[in-house]
Formats: sequence, structure tokens, C-alpha cells
Amino acid sequence: MRGIAAKMERKFYLVVTAGGSGTRMGGPVPKQFLELDGKAVLQRTLEKFIEAIPGVKVVTVLPKDFISLWKKYCLEHAFTYPQILVAGGITRFHSVRNALVRVPDGAFVAIHDGVRPLLSVSMIRRMVGRMSECRALIPVMPSVDTLKALRMDWDGHLQRIVGPDPVRGEIYCAQTPQIFRSEDLKAAYTQAFDTTFTDDASVAQRAGVPLSWCEGERLNIKLTTPEDLRLARAILSL
Amino acid sequence: MRGIAAKMERKFYLVVTAGGSGTRMGGPVPKQFLELDGKAVLQRTLEKFIEAIPGVKVVTVLPKDFISLWKKYCLEHAFTYPQILVAGGITRFHSVRNALVRVPDGAFVAIHDGVRPLLSVSMIRRMVGRMSECRALIPVMPSVDTLKALRMDWDGHLQRIVGPDPVRGEIYCAQTPQIFRSEDLKAAYTQAFDTTFTDDASVAQRAGVPLSWCEGERLNIKLTTPEDLRLARAILSL
Repeated sequence: MRGIAAKMERKFYLVVTAGGSGTRMGGPVPKQFLELDGKAVLQRTLEKFIEAIPGVKVVTVLPKDFISLWKKYCLEHAFTYPQILVAGGITRFHSVRNALVRVPDGAFVAIHDGVRPLLSVSMIRRMVGRMSECRALIPVMPSVDTLKALRMDWDGHLQRIVGPDPVRGEIYCAQTPQIFRSEDLKAAYTQAFDTTFTDDASVAQRAGVPLSWCEGERLNIKLTTPEDLRLARAILSL
Repeated sequence: MRGIAAKMERKFYLVVTAGGSGTRMGGPVPKQFLELDGKAVLQRTLEKFIEAIPGVKVVTVLPKDFISLWKKYCLEHAFTYPQILVAGGITRFHSVRNALVRVPDGAFVAIHDGVRPLLSVSMIRRMVGRMSECRALIPVMPSVDTLKALRMDWDGHLQRIVGPDPVRGEIYCAQTPQIFRSEDLKAAYTQAFDTTFTDDASVAQRAGVPLSWCEGERLNIKLTTPEDLRLARAILSL
């Protein structure tokens, strides 16, 4: 542990995006606050980084209306690790941009989805260890299934998009954490919003930041449906 | 149950592809024979269809060297459902082609991966119920993660492929079972092999068979690594 900390010439910031109030889970509570084996999903996510990177500075992005709920939760659960709480924006892009205001230049910054609590501490450490040689590091997984290019028509039916199907061996699924030098990412986030910015790698890439890739984890899934939550419970029981 | 059977104007065949002798799982036994909660993965897969489609004709494609092992397994486990056993070919395409020799024209035929035992009986029934209005039905799932087009260079590093990244909302992961009218699929399989034939939908599509799409299941995963098998055990314990 001391090894990693000593090697890091820069401070380490974590921005956890839990700004969505998406309730695809069906209930009134956003998914990052749902309980997973006795703890909120978001707490589980934060604890992985706190364990992996001693002294990490945590910026948590929350829907504005849930900030007081989260404060209350942390108090009640004696989850006292210092967090800078930031209100989310209208899209993920705007949420991250809000958070980066609280991150100084000259640091490393990892951006991570609040609803990916299942990544391993060793994956985080491995990625941190590579940051001395990378400008930006993005974890990816090869796709196992055959891929189809489809679009939904006005009747709600999927239709094949004319053209070649994507080639399975050349399409990778990007995960988080995605790690950057903070001055690079902050500069990238001065760009105007674009709907193709679906992760931080796409924002950084457009700004010319060279990206490096590493292997993600199969179990580092994004919990977005009740089925995912059941799956997560199963994984925790392993 | 009787409802479904009565509505079906055609016999129903299932081709289960378990022709791979891939041992990415690390052991000497191909993954379809590995034990999952007291039963071979392949038996679990077959039982889902036998329950969903009463009277289904089963064609099981196995690596040639494992046919006797599978016969022995079925005897010892009193798994007596009639199966036509077929030796696998050099690729999945050749395996399916070998199996289709045993399927008559005028039937429905579902092709399913032997290592996808976790699909639900209700998903199979729902798909079967739609076959009176479809020429071919392919289950797909939207991709949750941002996608990147990457290729491995000679040094084993991933490099971004120049050009636009795939658009997340338009890329779907195809699962199995994929269901066809047997004469359509048999005709499609008279085409010469092509490396872009990574599933039956791609073979049928090239032959001009119109494809319909339906929603797959998040838990209908392909078990290809030891981690997947652990995950499957956890899912079964839910």
C-alpha cells in the first residue's frame, strides 16, 4: 500500500457519478441508493476505492434532491470518509464537468460509475500502477456475443441498419474507472457538449488526449435493472 | 402447454451446439460437460427446452471424441430424453450444417448454444409463440456499455481503429436460441463458409431470410470462462 502511495507523484482524486435519478429499477429510490447485501450500492462502490488508494480524495456527484438523503445515510451508517458532494447536471457530461471544478490540476483523476460496485480492489491498484506511463487508461472487455446493428422503428420494432454488421473481434465494451491526468480531462471538458460523449474517454479523445487500454473485469457490471441487482447479490454471495 | 403444442403446425427441432472442445476453462473437460450444481451444463441447457416445448426433437452436436463420454453421462444420470447425436465440425458453421442433415424440411428449428443453460423456460415459450408470424426470430440485448472499435497490434497492445466509434444505442448483442423454418436455414447453410458467419442469423441473413428480433435475457449468458461458471453457480443459488 505504502508502495503505491509513495510512487504516486500526484494526488489522486475519485469522481463517482451517481447523478442519475433513473428509477428503471422500478422503485422510487435511484439505483445507486438501493441496498445490496446490507449496504447502499454507492457505499460499496466508494469503499473499493478507499481500500485501493489510501488517502484518495472523493468527489461524489448526486442528484440535487438526494444530497441530504445521502448525508443522512452516511451518518446513520457511520460511513465517515470525507466526501466532496456535488449536484449532478442535466446529463452525465454536465455532472462530470460540475465535479471537475473541485479537482485541481496536477492530480490523477479516476471517473467511476456509482452503480459499478463489483470491481476488484486489485483492478483499481493495477490501473493506478500504470498511470506513471499513461496519459489516460480505459478498461475494456471484448464482446462475447455476435453483434447486430439495429434501430427501433416508429412502431417499436427493431430493424437492421443497412450496411455491414459490426465485427465482433473489434468491438470492446468500455467500463469504468477511466483514469486521467486532471489537467487533461479538465481541458477536455471545456468542449461544448455533444451527444456522442457517452463516457469520459470519448470526451478526452475528441480533445486529442492519447488513450491507453487495459483489461476490465467481467463482473464489473453496471447495475441498471432489477435483474442486475439480483445478479449482484449472487456475485457477492460467491 | 397443450396450447402451444396444438398451435404449432410444424414439428419443433432443437439443435444444441456443444461441438467445441474449447478448454479455456482450464481443465481437460470441455465447458459444456462441466458440472453446474450437480448436473452437466449441457443437461441443464437441454432440460430447459424439453420443459418449454413438449415433444421437441433434440439434435445434440458434440466433439467426436466426447460422444461416448456424453452417452455414458446420460445413462449414469438417468437422463433418457431421446437425442440424435451428431459429431461437430471444424467450426460452429460446419457443426450446425452437420446437424441440419438430421432436420427435415417443414419444421421449426431452434439453434442454441450448449453453454447457455440460464435462459428461462418462459423466454423459449414466448419465442415459440411468435414463430407463426416470423420467418426467423433472433433474441438480442442492447449494449449497456460505451463501445470502442479496437484492434490488437503486433506487440499485443490495443489500438483504436481509425473512424467513428460504434454508436451504443444501435449495437445489440445477439443471443440464442435463434429460431428458423428449417427449409430456410437448410437452404442458407448450402452457402460456402465465410468467417463472418458468427451465428445462424448471419448465415440466414446472407441468404436473404428476413429476420425478426425479440428481447433476450440478461442472465442468458454464454459460459466461457471459470468466472462465468462461478457466476452461473451464484445465479442458480438465487
